[in-house]
Amino acid sequence: MENNKLHDIRHSLAHLLAIAVLKHDPRAKLAIGPVIDNGFYYDFLLSKPISETDLPELEKEMRKLIEAKLDFIGAERPKAEVLKMFEDQPFKCELIEDLSKEGSKLTTYTTGDFTDLCRGGHVKNTSEIPVDAFRIERTAGAYWRGDEKNQMLTRIYGLAFESKEKLDEYVAMREEAEKRDHKKLGRELDLFIIDEKVGKGLPLWTPKGTAVKFELEKFARELERKYDYEHVSTPYLGGEELYRTSGHLDHYTHSMYAPIDMDGDKFYLRPMACPHHIRLYQRKPWSYKDLPVRYAEIADYNRYEKSGELMGMIRVRKFQLTDGHIFVTPEGLKEEFKRVCNMIVEGMKGLGLLDIVSYRFSKRDPENKEKYFPDDDLWNHAEGLMKEALDELGLPYITALDEAAFYGPKLDVQAKNVHGKEDTLFTAQMDFLLPQKFEIEYVDADGQKKRPVMIHRSTIGSLERVFAFLIEHCAGAFPTWLAPTQVAIVPVSEKFMDYASEIYNKLKAEDVRVELDSSNETLGKKIRNNKMMKTPYLIVIGAKEVEAGTITAESRDKGQIKDLKIEDFVVMIKEEVAGRR
Amino acid sequence: MENNKLHDIRHSLAHLLAIAVLKHDPRAKLAIGPVIDNGFYYDFLLSKPISETDLPELEKEMRKLIEAKLDFIGAERPKAEVLKMFEDQPFKCELIEDLSKEGSKLTTYTTGDFTDLCRGGHVKNTSEIPVDAFRIERTAGAYWRGDEKNQMLTRIYGLAFESKEKLDEYVAMREEAEKRDHKKLGRELDLFIIDEKVGKGLPLWTPKGTAVKFELEKFARELERKYDYEHVSTPYLGGEELYRTSGHLDHYTHSMYAPIDMDGDKFYLRPMACPHHIRLYQRKPWSYKDLPVRYAEIADYNRYEKSGELMGMIRVRKFQLTDGHIFVTPEGLKEEFKRVCNMIVEGMKGLGLLDIVSYRFSKRDPENKEKYFPDDDLWNHAEGLMKEALDELGLPYITALDEAAFYGPKLDVQAKNVHGKEDTLFTAQMDFLLPQKFEIEYVDADGQKKRPVMIHRSTIGSLERVFAFLIEHCAGAFPTWLAPTQVAIVPVSEKFMDYASEIYNKLKAEDVRVELDSSNETLGKKIRNNKMMKTPYLIVIGAKEVEAGTITAESRDKGQIKDLKIEDFVVMIKEEVAGRR
Repeated sequence: MENNKLHDIRHSLAHLLAIAVLKHDPRAKLAIGPVIDNGFYYDFLLSKPISETDLPELEKEMRKLIEAKLDFIGAERPKAEVLKMFEDQPFKCELIEDLSKEGSKLTTYTTGDFTDLCRGGHVKNTSEIPVDAFRIERTAGAYWRGDEKNQMLTRIYGLAFESKEKLDEYVAMREEAEKRDHKKLGRELDLFIIDEKVGKGLPLWTPKGTAVKFELEKFARELERKYDYEHVSTPYLGGEELYRTSGHLDHYTHSMYAPIDMDGDKFYLRPMACPHHIRLYQRKPWSYKDLPVRYAEIADYNRYEKSGELMGMIRVRKFQLTDGHIFVTPEGLKEEFKRVCNMIVEGMKGLGLLDIVSYRFSKRDPENKEKYFPDDDLWNHAEGLMKEALDELGLPYITALDEAAFYGPKLDVQAKNVHGKEDTLFTAQMDFLLPQKFEIEYVDADGQKKRPVMIHRSTIGSLERVFAFLIEHCAGAFPTWLAPTQVAIVPVSEKFMDYASEIYNKLKAEDVRVELDSSNETLGKKIRNNKMMKTPYLIVIGAKEVEAGTITAESRDKGQIKDLKIEDFVVMIKEEVAGRR
Repeated sequence: MENNKLHDIRHSLAHLLAIAVLKHDPRAKLAIGPVIDNGFYYDFLLSKPISETDLPELEKEMRKLIEAKLDFIGAERPKAEVLKMFEDQPFKCELIEDLSKEGSKLTTYTTGDFTDLCRGGHVKNTSEIPVDAFRIERTAGAYWRGDEKNQMLTRIYGLAFESKEKLDEYVAMREEAEKRDHKKLGRELDLFIIDEKVGKGLPLWTPKGTAVKFELEKFARELERKYDYEHVSTPYLGGEELYRTSGHLDHYTHSMYAPIDMDGDKFYLRPMACPHHIRLYQRKPWSYKDLPVRYAEIADYNRYEKSGELMGMIRVRKFQLTDGHIFVTPEGLKEEFKRVCNMIVEGMKGLGLLDIVSYRFSKRDPENKEKYFPDDDLWNHAEGLMKEALDELGLPYITALDEAAFYGPKLDVQAKNVHGKEDTLFTAQMDFLLPQKFEIEYVDADGQKKRPVMIHRSTIGSLERVFAFLIEHCAGAFPTWLAPTQVAIVPVSEKFMDYASEIYNKLKAEDVRVELDSSNETLGKKIRNNKMMKTPYLIVIGAKEVEAGTITAESRDKGQIKDLKIEDFVVMIKEEVAGRR
């Protein structure tokens, strides 16, 4: 089925919904009824309320209309006539006035006794609408024209697809996505909280969340060390002159918070750490032999976000980016950029995210240059180099125009979330501009002072965002190395507590993240609780284990492992963790 | 020699300095000449400049005056007479006016031909002044009465002690302290920078400094895990309501920065993390069986400091505290506090700081209660408990009145810096107040809701401050486990670079912090450079080593270790690091 056809079905269903609502409440006033990406809605000012329990009735009524095989008949009409037709419908009258002011034609669509003001896009006859591929699913409040100064209307949402199979598939996908939602799992698995008193957009990592965070930090730093980065540590504040020089105060203030006065000087919560790393670079002279100089930091960043745009760990006001800046000679740029790409792929693979990740080569729009640093030669050179690098690596990528940074092209690491929506996880960028602004230098083989190029890049993105993607991707069932609790010990009863404690202490001494369930719940309840927490291994301790001096481990992913010596279990789990499985 | 006698000598020397300066510049105007803790100074408005090279001449003149055995003769005089005597000395006239306004007596002291306005405190005769125990050491600018709106004067400083031995001892101590100064060593050993563009009071840790920082973090976290803390991670910002509830906005604003607006809400750079940890505690209900709950975090803190009070890594505007908060039942408080003390002692021992650390039990001043949370019974109880805990541990401590926190008594871990000055490194505090303010609870064995007590405590203090103390204490020669570079490899010439690289890679693969010196310097220069950096081990690679397939390690602390296999060296250094030596 073509997209237009699906659009027409959804749009026609909106009209049928209006008919059904008018039958329920003949005095209802109609606002608008557009198509959305999973169906349609219609906004009404009702004279008697509609509750969720009324929805099946509306659906039934709509099915009758479908089975009645009604035509959709469009007609263009003069303003006076349309105003007359909708004299009882104040919202429609408002729309009619607006449309005529714009000089638009006025069209109506009639289905049986019902006529709506509508620009069209409908099926010819209701018989074209699959009778089992839609569902009226919920109501919500909505202001007329989205403006909170206007009247509050009732919005009724419907899902609609080409077939029952497609509808069922969508509903199942959405249920799964809801189950995997990182905000929901974050609460259920006790990974993080967002607390109104601490502040919106400022998550707090609980002990379990922090355990995952530390593993992610360790992972990023090991990778960085392997790729010859040096770690640095710089403050999340920066003086006015710093961000004046960098140009952030000219181009980036919309994402920055207002400055703070410190005894007469102005300081900003930093939006980026590049100027800090540049000032570190500038603390001493460098020779071409020292380059590339690679600085990495899990850096605190702050971004201005409106309350309404905050979202769990995905969009926050303060985050920690696995950040890094490379100072490289122009001659070394391409090879170094390839090295960065290899590192990124290795990182995504290590985290098990390769499946949901894709790469976007973001270029300047040559038709719309004013948004970009003005130097055609430099842009052509940089984009050419980046293309060569990507092609030589054989990295599969798409090209996107007008998505570059102000100062250069970039590679965006894109990830799809469980709702199918794509987000940028992090980027790698070439930058010829900041080195100029800060006048950074190295001494070349010929003894001349030259200007290095910078690469801005992240290792695995912000800890917050990658954590959210990981939670959703594995539905909270983290691989053992990342799991907040790796082993839960469940004694069958109080009697076996001594042996259970012994096992607990042995595992803790080996740095295994282990919990001992000493609650008074029944065994069944204890096992269910720990399974709900998606712990990779449960060790149930009963008479048999105490007698034999062994354990039985219930693996979340691999079934039961019986009669194991604790020492062997330690070897097994440590191997798993070392291999980051 | 009594302190008074030393004071009189120093004061008398100030007069002799004035005589010497007047001989050099008869038109000089005299301001004041007080005693300071290592000698004295005198402020002059000179008509001809005095440079450092003139100082020996002044000293010589003063020695002559000492040998001339002149008397110091005091006299009380009427105002008119004194004004007349000092009619050429405008600063003295100003002082005379002020003194008479205060109703003070006016006294003068005469030595030979010279008379100064002076309240006294002198030797009877210059022969009492040891002729070889003072030194005129430097000049500096100083405003009359310390006010920058007034005239700039020349201040001449002198050192003076009871004997030549005491003077030499003081000078040697000061030289040593200057050599150990963490700001100086921080620069020389490339550990951190303070950059004017980034901002005063906001140090940046270089790669070498960050290596030490990571070791300190690891040390603190291991210790915290050993003592059953759970790690959490919370943002350095907090909403207005949070700090309203905690009382920080009533009692602590002088140390806080102005709030930042985030889309209509006010946020503060947090001065403390207790409210954040409390909100984490409050995310779920707790039973008495769960307590103590111990949260630890290397937490970002911000404190308002005036520019003039900033000092290297010791006093900064943003720091990271090895922070922690314990929620404990009132019954468990004493034992838990002892546990905290044991942990602190273990931490200071592990860092090798026991020698410079002492403990101060800081109590409320019962005569001056208005500064403190008003509840006598609670104070008596808390101070009693803390005393019992300290006494039971046998921890040597001094008691200090009026040094408690607003909300409870505390144990201050005091450390002496190389200049002999004592500073608080960190504290452990009992707190009954915040649990009330936030209404935090647990369910006791009897099913009743009760209020826990909080302990605020640090593990090893702020990373910045403890780093500064460590640098100064070991004069930059860090023990191997903390050393930014643990091994430097120095090939005798380019020829041995391959073997040197092989050794380098083997050490790097074992996570040893190793550097390969590939500079074009002479061998001697390379060795000197690496010794200046105080690297624990130098490995010099020449023909002999390549031939034998061994290495020779030059230990900074233990002399030469010859003909070692690299594998044996790895075992040795890893043992050293694991043992934190």
